[in-house]
Order: sequence, then C-alpha cells, then structure tokens
Amino acid sequence: MKSDLDALMQARNLDVILVIGHAEHNPPMYYFVGGGHVSHATLIKKRGEEAVLFHNDMERDEAAKSGLKLMPYSNYDFEELFKKADRNSLLASAMRMEAMFKDLGIEAGRVGVYGNYDISSTFGVLNHLQKIMPAVEFVGESREDSVFMRAMETKDEADVARIRRMGKITTAVVAQVRDYLTSCDVRDDEVLLKEDGTPLTVGDVHAKIRLWVAERGAELPEGFIFAVGRDAGVPHSTGNPADLMRLGRTIVFDIYPAEAGGGYFYDFTRTWSLGYATPEAQELYDQVKEIFDKLGENFDLNAPFKNYQRMTCEYFESKGHKSPLNTKAPTEGYVHSLGHGVGLNIHERPFSGLMVGEDHRLTPGVVITSEPGLYYPEKGMGFRIEDTLWVRPDGRIETLAEYPYDFVLPMKKWKKE
Amino acid sequence: MKSDLDALMQARNLDVILVIGHAEHNPPMYYFVGGGHVSHATLIKKRGEEAVLFHNDMERDEAAKSGLKLMPYSNYDFEELFKKADRNSLLASAMRMEAMFKDLGIEAGRVGVYGNYDISSTFGVLNHLQKIMPAVEFVGESREDSVFMRAMETKDEADVARIRRMGKITTAVVAQVRDYLTSCDVRDDEVLLKEDGTPLTVGDVHAKIRLWVAERGAELPEGFIFAVGRDAGVPHSTGNPADLMRLGRTIVFDIYPAEAGGGYFYDFTRTWSLGYATPEAQELYDQVKEIFDKLGENFDLNAPFKNYQRMTCEYFESKGHKSPLNTKAPTEGYVHSLGHGVGLNIHERPFSGLMVGEDHRLTPGVVITSEPGLYYPEKGMGFRIEDTLWVRPDGRIETLAEYPYDFVLPMKKWKKE
Repeated sequence: MKSDLDALMQARNLDVILVIGHAEHNPPMYYFVGGGHVSHATLIKKRGEEAVLFHNDMERDEAAKSGLKLMPYSNYDFEELFKKADRNSLLASAMRMEAMFKDLGIEAGRVGVYGNYDISSTFGVLNHLQKIMPAVEFVGESREDSVFMRAMETKDEADVARIRRMGKITTAVVAQVRDYLTSCDVRDDEVLLKEDGTPLTVGDVHAKIRLWVAERGAELPEGFIFAVGRDAGVPHSTGNPADLMRLGRTIVFDIYPAEAGGGYFYDFTRTWSLGYATPEAQELYDQVKEIFDKLGENFDLNAPFKNYQRMTCEYFESKGHKSPLNTKAPTEGYVHSLGHGVGLNIHERPFSGLMVGEDHRLTPGVVITSEPGLYYPEKGMGFRIEDTLWVRPDGRIETLAEYPYDFVLPMKKWKKE
Repeated sequence: MKSDLDALMQARNLDVILVIGHAEHNPPMYYFVGGGHVSHATLIKKRGEEAVLFHNDMERDEAAKSGLKLMPYSNYDFEELFKKADRNSLLASAMRMEAMFKDLGIEAGRVGVYGNYDISSTFGVLNHLQKIMPAVEFVGESREDSVFMRAMETKDEADVARIRRMGKITTAVVAQVRDYLTSCDVRDDEVLLKEDGTPLTVGDVHAKIRLWVAERGAELPEGFIFAVGRDAGVPHSTGNPADLMRLGRTIVFDIYPAEAGGGYFYDFTRTWSLGYATPEAQELYDQVKEIFDKLGENFDLNAPFKNYQRMTCEYFESKGHKSPLNTKAPTEGYVHSLGHGVGLNIHERPFSGLMVGEDHRLTPGVVITSEPGLYYPEKGMGFRIEDTLWVRPDGRIETLAEYPYDFVLPMKKWKKE
C-alpha cells in the first residue's frame, strides 16, 4: 500500500523518488496523481515527506485534482536555461530538474527514477544531471521489484472496490458475448451466421467485444484474446480476424479491461466450445477445470505463489502433459506460469514462476490471477480458465467477479442430430 | 520517412539503434513492428542493415506479422544468466543484451536508445551494460529531435492514407455528436434534455463520444476535450462531467482518435455555441476564424512553422489580446502555439513555438495541425479551430478531412423568441 513507500525507500536506502511522464498509462505516476490528463509532469518525493507535482501551467486544473502539492513549470525559466545550455534541450531539462531538486532541498543522496516514458530523452537528461549533480546517485530498479511494485503489491479496500467494479464490467461483457454467439443461426457446415446471413468471423466478435467494453466506459488494451482452434493453442495469439466462427472448436476468451486512462485492471479467461465438444477437447477441459478447482481449495494465506505453479505442473505432468517443471520453454501442454498480481499493471507482483523468489506470497491484500491452461496448437486446441482473486485481510480468498465455468455452450437455434 | 533512418544515424554518428518495449503505444517500436501484441521486445538495427526483432517465444505469431528478421529470447538462457548474475535481474538482462549485441557483431560504437517503456529498469540495465561493454557508448536523444522524430516527420502516401482514414472517422463522430446535440429538447432555462427528460450533462456527451469512436474501431486517449464555458477557456481542461449542457455557451470539442493499438492519430477541434451565441462570443469566434483562414491562405512550402505562430500572435495582439509574443506564459488571450506535427505521436515534429529552430519547416511530407484559439476562463469562454493538414509533395496544402466551421448550431426543436 502507498503507506508502505517510506519504509520501502528506507530498506533500499533511497532518499528520493523521482517519477517522470504523463499520468495516463504510467502506473507510478497514476499511483500518485490518480489519473487525469496530466502530461509530462515530474513528481518528486523525499523519504518521509509528501510528494510534490511539477506540472505544465496549462494543466493546472487537471493537476489540482490529484490533491498533491503543486509547483508549475513556469517557476523555472526554461527559455533562459535553454539559452544557457546552448540550445541543448536535454541539458536545459537537466538544469531545470537540478533547480527543482534544490528548491526541495535535495543536493545529494540516492534518487530512484520511475515512470513509463520516453527512454531516450530520460536517459539523456539523467546523464547530464548526473554530471551537474555529482553528489546525487540515480538508481534504476527492476520492473518486477521496484519500490512501486512492492507498495502496489497489496491493495486496500478502495483499490479492491475499483478492481471489483472492473470485474463486474468484464463479466457483463463476457455474458453479452456468450448470449450473442449462442443466438446465432448455424449453417449446414456448422459455420455461425450473422443477422444478415453472412458468416460470423473472429474479427466481427473482436469488434463487438471492443464496443461492449467501451459502452461501459472501460478501456481494453489491444491484445485481448478471442482465439479459436490453432490460435487458441498459442497462448498469446489474439485470434485471426478472418477465421470463421464454427461449432465444436475450442475458443479461448481472455479479456482484461481497465479503468479509462490507465487505471485498475481485471483479468479473466473462459474457454468455450459452441454447440458441442469433441471428446478429446472435453477431456482436456475437464483436466484444466480440475486443477483450477484444486488450486482454489488449496490457496493458503502467506504461502509462496510458486508452490501452486509447482502443484499445477505436477498435476498436468501426471496427466501426461509437458510443463515448465521438467521441460524448458515447452510449446505444448502447460506452457506458462500459473498467475500474477493485477492492479495498475496487468502483470505485477506477486509472480508465480518457478524461478521467482519465495517472497512472492499470498500476503493479505494481494490481488492475483489463477489461470491454468493446456495448449495443443497442432491439434487446433487450447484451454485456459482464469479468475482474479483477492487475498482478504481476514485470510479468505475471494473471487472478485463470479462467472459460470461451462465449457460447451448450447446453441439456442441448433441441436446436434 | 523510414528510408531516411540510415542517413540520420550517420549524421548523428550513431552506429546502432536500440528500441525497447512493447509495440503498442510505443512509436519507435510501432514504426518498425507495425503494431500487434508484441510485448517486451528488443529491436536492434545497425546502420545500413535490416532491423532484428528479439521477442518472447509465446508471441512468435504476433512478431512474425512484422515481417522483420526474428530472434526468439529463448536463444538466450535467462535462467542461467540470472544465476550467473547472482539473481540480479537487471544485470542478467544486461548480460542477455550483451549476448544479443555480440550475435549481431556489435562490440563497440555509439548506440542510440529509444522507446516508451519502464524508465527504471531500462536505466538500471543500461548502467550495467555500460560497465560490461565499455567500448559501447549509449546515447539518449531529446524527444523532439531524435532520429525517429526526424524520420517520422515526413509521411509517405501510405502513412497519409492511414491518417486520412482516421480523419474520416473523426469527422463522422463529430457530425454524430452535432446531430445528437441539436436534436435535444430544451428546458425553459435553456438546459438540454436527454431522451428520458433528464438534463444532458457533459459527462453524458463524453460517454457518447467514447462509444461512437469505439464503434468505428479507433481508440480515443483520455484527455480528449469536450468542455463548456469556463472549462472551454482552459486549453487542456477536458470538461467537467457534472456540468449541464446549456444553450449559448462556448463548447470546445478537441478530439484526436488513433488507430487501435497506438497507431496514427488525427487531430481536430471545433468550437460551437448551441442555439445562439452572445455577441461577445461571436466576435471572438470570428477573430479565430479570420486568422485560421488567413493562415490557410499563407502557408508556404518549406517556410519555418514558427513564422505562422508569429503571424497568429501579431494578429491577436492587433485585436487587443495577449499572446506569447509579448507576454510570458499568458493565461488568457492566445495562450499556446499554433500547431504541431501529427503521426504516431499526437505531438511531433515540426513544432511551431517561437523558441523552436528554423529547421521546423513545412517540408513536403509533413502533417501538421493549424489551431489558433482564444481563451477567457473568467468570462467563461474559449475558442479553438483545428484541422490536420498535409504538405503534399507537389507543394499543395491539403486538409485531410473536411468539416464545416459553423459556430452557432441551430437547435432542431428550439427557436430564440
């Protein structure tokens, strides 16, 4: 939680946090600013003190919504600095940043740098700044383990309320897609038809998903997955828009909408087969569902997350599938890790890979996914089931949005002969 | 254009370009990869050679769509490197990058680094890499003037076709909003009503704009502007969702949709007053329109863009308004610069500020906005007109999407008594 930041800074010997960039789609800045159209801001927080937001004068109204202490860029005469820097804008920006630091009484110490922003200019500015402020040491941290990722790892009730709201939106869209698909007419060759009698494509379904998410005021990163057959068997394939929708093929539907402007995510997957399933597909689905349920019964407060990855690998290997436990980077069978934290980042701590540390645990407050799956691209099949779970302060594990687990979806106007 | 990159690298004495991050919302990576769900990739291009894309094995199908030469991350044993690096993931990433460089025969030289990505980990990795590859010099460039911004500054027919398509979508949405607003019922106190008889809010209009953009398969960054009254007078205020829509108030509608996944933008603004306008508002609007037209008649091939900023400032000052020409950071009058390039970035070269260099010109191939405006927040008024223009290779300046310039929009069911 945000209140952990000072202790985290202390543990890493960081005197100052420096965050650069816009508020949107920039988790460290969003975490402080709370979204809004604040572009190219600079946030500086000394350990044990409130953060200060330096912002464009034109964006003062948006910046004020953050509730942070504000300082407009116009306090610094960039034109003058630009001249002094011989029209080198990187150096001028470094000189302005030096002035900001000095205004906050920072002349030395370890400064952690954060943000999703333009790497090139940031690297250029920091190189200059390092030269003009030799007593300051600038520090980069790993994406997975920065003080931000650590602070954000545990969520409070307010954060979870926002994630839960995205879960409601997610499952409402999924239900709408299910209703739409099962209402379609079906041609003799088992191809689904649109209202106008032409074949329904995967691309048509993608468009509806985008629309139905937007209608609910959320945003959907490209890369959501509605993939059929072979594509369903490649975990990150988004689905081929030209494919026709047919009965009896496995459909992996993995969707992770976020609050508009880069806020909290929800992460969710179901696997469907329309009308009927082949016996082989049904058997593989049942295995995925069995370990999914077993995991749900076994999640223990404070247990290392990777214990459950191991459990999943062992289960799948006992059924004759490959897994990362004994195969390096398998491309069929169980090919990924069990889950990940979800928050302002779609992937954040804790992680579940076999290689991650024991400190990735089911601590009270974490929000995680559980998403076992099986993939057989050559057989034209893939399966994954995923819910987003909150490890409550009372130790109970709560699914943040309930949704049924049916694999075969009966078609309203079609019956197997 | 992309074909300029090698010459630009030569001019800056860069031997290698290194691009980091995902393809979406990351213009340098998008420029090469062309979008798609490629996350956490590394692109390395030596001067005079084709670029190579290092990618996650799971994303091979998406990466293949780029048409680039591919190398999967699994060529490098990260687990082994992680152990060797004593579980320091930044160092392990640096060691993997060293191996990638060596596989491409890069052992020394100047390497420009680019991408919108996590600053912290990138800075950390580059710091390690610099130590293990001391013969390589890593270089950051300013956002506004990097080799990418220079290459992207001029667009070819294919780029412009994509921008023009976004212009069509933009103006179609604007027309739909106009139709919707002018069809509303109006209460005695001049408040617009929704179909259900309750007052129409700015937030309702925001939701419709989002929906109608999504319906057309484009994406709309938060921060689009539909702002009324005082908010219209603050250039970057997005509009207060709780405000009621009323007749006779200035509405600034600034919208910049992009191709889904972070592709090409279109940028567009109109100012409206529903039903009627106050005489003062009409007079100020007419001034904005007058200089907008005058600019359109005066744009000259290869002229410095800032000449037109000066022309705009002089015009507005002649009418008694403040402008950046003689007032530092004015907050009323004409308060910004005239325009900017548009492409994979909503703001890119050429720029028009009075401080920018003479090399920001109306070169053949640039796509720019022209967007003069006037702002009087204390009077509750703001005005801006903006089109996106292409400086064609034949020297003609083309508005990429035509749309009428009416200020007062007559209401279909309401007449001034």
